[in-house]
Amino acid sequence: MRDMTKEEIKSLDKEHVLHSWSVQGTLDPMVVTKAEGIYFYDADGNKYYDMSSQLVNLNIGYGNEKVADAIAEQAHKLPFIGPGYAVDVKSELARKIIELAPDNMGKVFFTLGGADANENALKIARLYTGRNKVFSRYRSYHGSTMGAGNLTGEPRRFNCETNGVSGYIKFFDPYIYREPIEFKSEVEATKYYLAKLREQIIYENPETVAAIECETITGSNGCIIPPDGYLQGIRDICDEFGIMMICDEVMMGWGRTGEYFAFQNWDVKPDLVSFAKGVTCGYAPLGGVIVSKKIAEYFDDHKLLCGLTYSGHPLSCAAGVATLDVYKEEKLVENSKAMGKILGEILEELKRKHPCVGDVRYKGLFSALELVKDKATKEPLVEYNSDPDNTMGKIIGSLKKKGFSTYSHENCIIVAPPLIIKEDELRAAMDIMDEVLGEVDKMI
Amino acid sequence: MRDMTKEEIKSLDKEHVLHSWSVQGTLDPMVVTKAEGIYFYDADGNKYYDMSSQLVNLNIGYGNEKVADAIAEQAHKLPFIGPGYAVDVKSELARKIIELAPDNMGKVFFTLGGADANENALKIARLYTGRNKVFSRYRSYHGSTMGAGNLTGEPRRFNCETNGVSGYIKFFDPYIYREPIEFKSEVEATKYYLAKLREQIIYENPETVAAIECETITGSNGCIIPPDGYLQGIRDICDEFGIMMICDEVMMGWGRTGEYFAFQNWDVKPDLVSFAKGVTCGYAPLGGVIVSKKIAEYFDDHKLLCGLTYSGHPLSCAAGVATLDVYKEEKLVENSKAMGKILGEILEELKRKHPCVGDVRYKGLFSALELVKDKATKEPLVEYNSDPDNTMGKIIGSLKKKGFSTYSHENCIIVAPPLIIKEDELRAAMDIMDEVLGEVDKMI
Ligand SMILES: Cc1ncc(COP(=O)(O)O)c(C=O)c1O
Ligand SMILES: Cc1ncc(COP(=O)(O)O)c(C=O)c1O
Repeated sequence: MRDMTKEEIKSLDKEHVLHSWSVQGTLDPMVVTKAEGIYFYDADGNKYYDMSSQLVNLNIGYGNEKVADAIAEQAHKLPFIGPGYAVDVKSELARKIIELAPDNMGKVFFTLGGADANENALKIARLYTGRNKVFSRYRSYHGSTMGAGNLTGEPRRFNCETNGVSGYIKFFDPYIYREPIEFKSEVEATKYYLAKLREQIIYENPETVAAIECETITGSNGCIIPPDGYLQGIRDICDEFGIMMICDEVMMGWGRTGEYFAFQNWDVKPDLVSFAKGVTCGYAPLGGVIVSKKIAEYFDDHKLLCGLTYSGHPLSCAAGVATLDVYKEEKLVENSKAMGKILGEILEELKRKHPCVGDVRYKGLFSALELVKDKATKEPLVEYNSDPDNTMGKIIGSLKKKGFSTYSHENCIIVAPPLIIKEDELRAAMDIMDEVLGEVDKMI
Repeated sequence: MRDMTKEEIKSLDKEHVLHSWSVQGTLDPMVVTKAEGIYFYDADGNKYYDMSSQLVNLNIGYGNEKVADAIAEQAHKLPFIGPGYAVDVKSELARKIIELAPDNMGKVFFTLGGADANENALKIARLYTGRNKVFSRYRSYHGSTMGAGNLTGEPRRFNCETNGVSGYIKFFDPYIYREPIEFKSEVEATKYYLAKLREQIIYENPETVAAIECETITGSNGCIIPPDGYLQGIRDICDEFGIMMICDEVMMGWGRTGEYFAFQNWDVKPDLVSFAKGVTCGYAPLGGVIVSKKIAEYFDDHKLLCGLTYSGHPLSCAAGVATLDVYKEEKLVENSKAMGKILGEILEELKRKHPCVGDVRYKGLFSALELVKDKATKEPLVEYNSDPDNTMGKIIGSLKKKGFSTYSHENCIIVAPPLIIKEDELRAAMDIMDEVLGEVDKMI
């Protein structure tokens, strides 16, 4: 690569690159030239805590030499061979993934990211069950291709369903904080959500339902944590009706919640698991679907009608093998749990202190702060799918100006630092959050 | 990566990896450990001419040190940063792509492969036009996610359309060899196809049609080459009705046909171009959509409702920058044209010689041999979407046993070697084809 000035990088970007989910004319993309550990630097040398691990994918942080070396080695050895062949890195990565997955799991179908992981999970569930409908939740994001986009519940779905697509049934999330009713206990909440889901499935005719797909913990849409017994209840409903349980672990997988997979927090065994992000931490693009032994067996004598040129891409698999080694060697899942406990305490303190913080939710190193205009009424700081004054954007901007980089979604701020973060770094970063929340308090 | 024996690689693959488009129990995947230039080697040291460039993506061949070095360098520098930021490799790659594209083109939206390139091309066309329907052709493959799968015409579409999806209109390809009528001339054929397309668009209500998407030259489905004037005619129909012209250049782009983009063979300017494969040759996963300046401008003040975590992935962009340099430095597009001429002559000779060869079609280094039971009746060697005796699989197996690796689709064999191939290599490989076609002659 030739050397380029900051100005050239930015002006070429503005001239020729289309950016995701944006009105292009309003963008002024920051030029990034360097990153290390939990920090990245803009071209002026300003340093930022990456408190969202980019898009909650950089679990091992920046500049991990082991993964970089593995990529470099594979690039020189055999960066690519078609999906029909067997190669060491693909075999080894599949082995490692199945080893970490629950004991009912059998095989992996590799993709490139989260959207195509969900596309293929859905296809496989439909092929296996011979059924068509799929249940997923309103406050969910599963990707932006046509299938994953229709699974998605939130507004990023809207432009995927222009074609009168049917069969994508949405149900409500266990979003206890915002229910119009109050539950006496978590047990009661779980009972309520499961009863409503079961009722809806019966209305839709269970024999037409191929799958229930959930983010194990809702990610971008505000860290909605299932109450105890909820996932087990979904498992039971699936078993009752022969429906496949699909856990979307794209964001929550790979240690984010203090376990390798988030559903392991509740000891549940899904039939299919979609994953991406943390499996390579984005060092190279990779995603996939883990399927149960039972499903895998079905495809021993039925055609798997799934495929992409880069399924099981060797360069990406090499990155995956090295990344999974890093989790183990650096005890990152354990650190996620330990630091998550501290993060939780800090968040509870912030909630106590700041009138603008309506709720905090956290598991491991994934968390969200839900901002409100009024703690008593819970009126959200911005309306659903509407922030005409860019209020949330300004808060994220304030954080960034002080060196705290993250993103927001609706009225929630996501905090999900790399799993390598240390206590002092976490506390220092959260002091910035404290400061900015103080500013928000004054706004409301 | 730890060392693994051939046996372990294979048995782990069989135990834990799901392979594309296959009945898993019938697979015995070859273990590949090494590759160089136009050759790859199995674990027993057998050498194969890669006469399909894997899945028509390895245009620069295996073992290109420049691209491997660029990947290694980026892996150590900054393998990943989110799509919202500007980085040198992304800016530079976008610049290079726009430089090579026709002068009406403005910006690039980066994806990971061909399917999501088409998903986003379609979304952008719908957002821009405010219309919903899309026309594509029966003998086409555009990918296997839900949107790209519905664009697809051939049987790999069937399991994507389970949901009563509407708005994906199919029209016939300019497949002159298999028309039930005979045209007096290419001019007459072009006139016929365009008239039928225009008629169908009017039946569907042109004001509801967002886009016409075509593989510029049909790839996997048998190298169907548009007659002269055909693409220009589609351009005119699009202009008449305000419809977006999308060229799928996933397989044909990046020098494959002797021009950087296949539509440059006919001097046509589409509104959107989807690409993947050759842009990095698979050294790292990358795809994208090129949009016209007009479309790009529209999104200056309208939200682009497209996004994926790995849009503009720096590692992949670095591979892209280096790959495009290789095309230029090694004059691969020119070589594609020159070797394509020789390949064409060889194919015409094979057609003259072998009763089983009904037709040969070629452009640059992309070609197909269409096998028949009878040259006069043109009865295909295997029926559409049905090959119960695995006849084509056996032919591909015979070729492979003799060191000629490629794939078939329906009754066609694809020949599309890396663009670095030399004349003596091409002739030597095609001698193998000659030999195997002799065996097929005896079968019919
Ligand atoms: C839970 C979840 N599923 C799927 C996706 C889509 O992944 P990708 O952006 O790689 O397509 C995301 C992305 O943020 C996600 O958070
Ligand atoms: C013309 C064309 N479009 C799209 C695709 C899909 O690309 P991918 O396999 O990368 O999803 C292919 C793959 O072969 C193709 O040939």
